[in-house]
Formats: sequence, structure tokens, C-alpha cells
Amino acid sequence: MIIAVDAMGTDACPVADVHGAVLAARERGLHVVLTGDETAIKRELAKYNTTGLTIDIVHAPQAITMHDKPSVIGKGKPDSSMHIALKMVKDKQADAFVTMGNTGAAHAVAMLHTVGRIRGVKRPALSAVFPVFGHPVIFTDIGANADAKPEWMVQFALMGAIYAERALGTSSNPRIGLLSNGEEEGKGNTLIRETAEILARLPLNFVGNVEPKQVFHNQADVVVSDGFVGNILLKTYEAGTRYLSEHIRRTIRANIVWTLAGAALRPAFSRVRTKIDTTEVGGAPLLGVDGVVIIGHGSSNEIAVRNAVFQAERAVSGDIVNHIRQRLPEVMALLESVP
Amino acid sequence: MIIAVDAMGTDACPVADVHGAVLAARERGLHVVLTGDETAIKRELAKYNTTGLTIDIVHAPQAITMHDKPSVIGKGKPDSSMHIALKMVKDKQADAFVTMGNTGAAHAVAMLHTVGRIRGVKRPALSAVFPVFGHPVIFTDIGANADAKPEWMVQFALMGAIYAERALGTSSNPRIGLLSNGEEEGKGNTLIRETAEILARLPLNFVGNVEPKQVFHNQADVVVSDGFVGNILLKTYEAGTRYLSEHIRRTIRANIVWTLAGAALRPAFSRVRTKIDTTEVGGAPLLGVDGVVIIGHGSSNEIAVRNAVFQAERAVSGDIVNHIRQRLPEVMALLESVP
Repeated sequence: MIIAVDAMGTDACPVADVHGAVLAARERGLHVVLTGDETAIKRELAKYNTTGLTIDIVHAPQAITMHDKPSVIGKGKPDSSMHIALKMVKDKQADAFVTMGNTGAAHAVAMLHTVGRIRGVKRPALSAVFPVFGHPVIFTDIGANADAKPEWMVQFALMGAIYAERALGTSSNPRIGLLSNGEEEGKGNTLIRETAEILARLPLNFVGNVEPKQVFHNQADVVVSDGFVGNILLKTYEAGTRYLSEHIRRTIRANIVWTLAGAALRPAFSRVRTKIDTTEVGGAPLLGVDGVVIIGHGSSNEIAVRNAVFQAERAVSGDIVNHIRQRLPEVMALLESVP
Repeated sequence: MIIAVDAMGTDACPVADVHGAVLAARERGLHVVLTGDETAIKRELAKYNTTGLTIDIVHAPQAITMHDKPSVIGKGKPDSSMHIALKMVKDKQADAFVTMGNTGAAHAVAMLHTVGRIRGVKRPALSAVFPVFGHPVIFTDIGANADAKPEWMVQFALMGAIYAERALGTSSNPRIGLLSNGEEEGKGNTLIRETAEILARLPLNFVGNVEPKQVFHNQADVVVSDGFVGNILLKTYEAGTRYLSEHIRRTIRANIVWTLAGAALRPAFSRVRTKIDTTEVGGAPLLGVDGVVIIGHGSSNEIAVRNAVFQAERAVSGDIVNHIRQRLPEVMALLESVP
């Protein structure tokens, strides 16, 4: 299996990008191709013992930054590390693409300039996977489509379920929940109510509306929302848990007994952090494009990069793209035939 | 000042409702009127020393439960404790109404059967106030309108700003932020982009889009959203921080040193809890109805009930209703005159 990794993705690229790729190649014997500035990549690679590893470099004369507008990247930077890596996926020279770079850019380059979308997919969805008390839950869409239509939401649900089943090993019939402001039927906004109505008619394991508290109680394997609401959920979770952590930190400093007890608990707190941190999973699959594309945070460290490569490996092993290609038209046809 | 308190609101009514009202009457010398089952209220009141307090009882033969549908309550329970208390507000026999009961029902009874909306208000908005590192922030709408239009959002912003200024003492020119998935101009869904465009043209202290992390960094005094997204934000915050707390609790139990350190920190953790708990504030103002209406959680204890009564007191002292009545038409007129 060959994974193309954008070496110019993280905020401090190519340091963590190259390091993470080396870790992935070493731990899972993956063949990794790094795209980006050849000189810089070579300089980084020289820091590690790569004996016995298969790591190639493909030079890319351009790099996309976080400030580049997705709309102008296509024509403006046709030789970027993203373009070159994604072209390899398109041309079957690589099985997957991993980047910690500009999400909008990766989406645009994939959709408009390289692999394109899977036939029948209305809109690709950005997904996030993170474990709730150890059990992986996939959230889709978390940011690709700020406005959505019910039919798109149904596809997000289906693609998320396929990913859960094939790449996360959740179960053979993942529970699909629709993120809503109330679990009762009829709750939600117009989009949610219309989507719920369609999902209920399809041969999917639709468990109905789920509120955030149910999401954190493992009552769904796939949590479906439009990209705006999904993004707010994820960012609120991150900001809210950080806010609580900061409060604990400040409060503990109030007296010497608490400060000492807090010091004793430092390893416990850092263990908790790795368990609840959404970035630990390393990458978000962009579902619906015609190739495996995993996008991570710009602030990722080498562990997050490595984990994103592992995420790509799972998606490739689960043959996600072909399963979406096959099942999606079946379900959508059903949708049209059932009144 | 006379505050009408629904004694039949909490899940275990009238215990916490009556207790909270007694605390409020005692601490702030407020005149409280309890509406509900007279016998039950008298039995509860007898538990406390009410010497020197002004606490009246107005009997209500009916009570609304959490399971009653808002749509059928109006005609079905015209003599409920909510109807009777809100009629007192309408008839100027009380200055405010406080309930821990069914939110949808309180909304419906206020809007359709008693006080109605303030002239010019498109839709009332449910708001939540909670302190971010000690500084009160008002979120509006957090649940009254699952679907919203830009003009409604502008009114939510204005009503929230008036509340912040007059009842929370935030500043004379509260910073209004529009909850979005990115802070850059042009981010957000269609509703957010259209609302931002209008807000930018008005004489308001509009600071632009705010992401959840900025909300938790005190970068806005008023956080505006539609009721669906606002509700998801609030519930994700609550569920996410509880999830983190539960993780800490479980992790600390892993060994004896951590367990002991955790025991020493128990008072610190509970201090943090009271600071980050959204229910501590006690009640959410329903803005835009023609009277002060504060709605709290059904699970409230006596402290939350007391705090909700205090919230009502602040809203009355700030003369919120009249300020909305005066400023709203001015701003809306401006909206029509400016292209």
C-alpha cells in the first residue's frame, strides 16, 4: 500500500510531516511518498534512521499555505505538493493522500483538479473520527458544506456508515444518529426534520435524532449534521473542554495543598488529554471524493501525522471508495422509488 | 418589585421552587408571589422561617408538565400556574415571571395567551447568560427558533445587547459576535453571511464572526445564533465538559496515589463546577415578549431558582422590556432606510 503524504502541510512543515511519515512507515511497513520541497524533505529525512523503510520523495515546486484561498489555488499553484500527491492517487500511483494543510484547498484540489467526486455523490463531506470512551464515532459533515440539503445529508449518513463499518470496524450495521436539539421525533430545524423523514424510509440503522449528550454517551456510531453545525459541535467541544481544563488549572493554584495534589495528578491529566483530544485520531476523511483523502490539523505533531497515515491505511484496507461507489446508487435509487 | 414564581416548575416541584423563592425574598427583600397548588405550596412554605418576608400564594388548579405539548396547553390548561402568573404580569400585578417548567409551554403561554410579543419584534428569542471567566456573556437565541431569518437574527442581536447593557452591566456598548465556523468575513452558512452583512451596516458594536474558542476567550458579550445552533452549542458545552469530568474521575481511580490526590482536590473540583456550570446562573430570559420572563431548567435546585429570581430582578431593574420597545423600531427603521 502506497500513501502519498503532503510534506508541506503542518504549520511548521516539513518537520512533523516527515517525522510522522517515518513513524508510520516504520510501525506498519507502509510505503510512503513524500511530496514537497525535495531539499527540505531530504534534510528532515536525514535526521532519522530509515534503513529498511520505503520512503520516496516527489519534488513539488509549490506549496499551499493556510492563507491561500481555495478558489484561486487550482490555477495559481498547479504544481503544489497537494496537486502532485493527489494526481498520484488519481493515476493509481498511490492508494491514498494525507495532508495536514489547508482544508479548503485540499477539498478544492481533490474535487476540481484531480480525483473529483465519486459518481452519484452530491457533495463530499468532511468527517471527524474520535473515540467516545474508547469507541470510535464518526461525525459527518464537519465543515465541507455550510449549507446542506436533505439528500446530501442522507448521503453523508450513508458514507459515514460505510466508513464506520469498513474502516473503523464499528459494527456491521452502524447506528446513524441525526444531530439535533432534541431527541424527540419532530424536533430540529427544517433540514433535520426533512432528513429524518427520508432516513426513516431507508434500509439503514437510523436511530433518530441525537442530542450532544447522547453523542457523548455512545448512542450513535455515525453522527450526521450539515457542515456548519458539525463544525460548531466539534469546535465547541474543543473550546469547552479547554475552558474547563484552564479553570481546573487556575483553581488548583489557589493553595499549596491543591497545588501539590495537582502535581501528583499531572500524569493522570495528560492521560485524560490524550483520550479526549480530537486531534489524537490524526485526520478527517474527506468522504465522497474518488480516492482516499485524509486531512488533519495544521498544528499536528508527528504522532497526529502518523495517526492520519494509519487512518488512510484503514480507509484503503476497507476499500471505502468502492463501497461508496457501489452502495450509494442503490440507496439513492431506493429513495426515488419509495414515495 | 413583585416577582411571580411558578411553584409547579421543577421536576420535583414545588420543593425547590418554593425554597428558592424564600431565599430570594429573604436575601433581596423581594415580594414574591407563588402560583400553583395552594395546599402543596403552604406545606412547603411551612418548612421555612418566613417572618418579615412578603410571600403571597395564588392558587392555580392546573399544572403544566414536561410532557405537555406546547400547542395544546393554551386551551387545555387555561388555569395553569403559568397562565395565572403570566396574567399577573400582563395585568401589571407582577413585574416578572419565573418558571423552571416546560420551556415550549412557557413560550407558548406568554406569546399566545398572555403578554404577547413587544410590538415590532419578529420572534422572541430564548437567551442564556453564563459567565466566561467571571464575565457574563449572553447567548441568543438558544432554542426558541430552530429556523431563523436574517432580520430575526438582527433583532436577537439587538435584544441581547440591550440585555447585556441594562441587566448584566456588561458595558454601555456590548460587543456583538455572530457565532460561526470561522472568524473571517464571508465564513458561515447563508444565514450567517446575510446577517453579518446587515449587522455591519447598523450602529451596533458588531465585532464580526466569532468561533466557539473566541466565545470562551471573552471576545464577545453577546453571541448571536439561530435557536438550533445556539442550542447545539450550549448542549455540546454541557455534554463535553461532563464527558471530560467523567474521564478525569475514571482516570484518577486508576491507582492509590491519584485517588488520594483526587480526594484532596475534591473541593477544588466542586469550586470549578460552580464556576463553569451553565445552570448556576439560574435562568434564561425570553427576550421579545411584552414582560420579563425567565425560564430555568426543570432539574434546578433551590439555588438555581433563587438565581433565576435574581435574574428577573435585574431584568426588571434594567427596564429591559421598555428599552427593547423603544430601540427596536429605531434600528429596524434604519435597516429599511439604509440600502
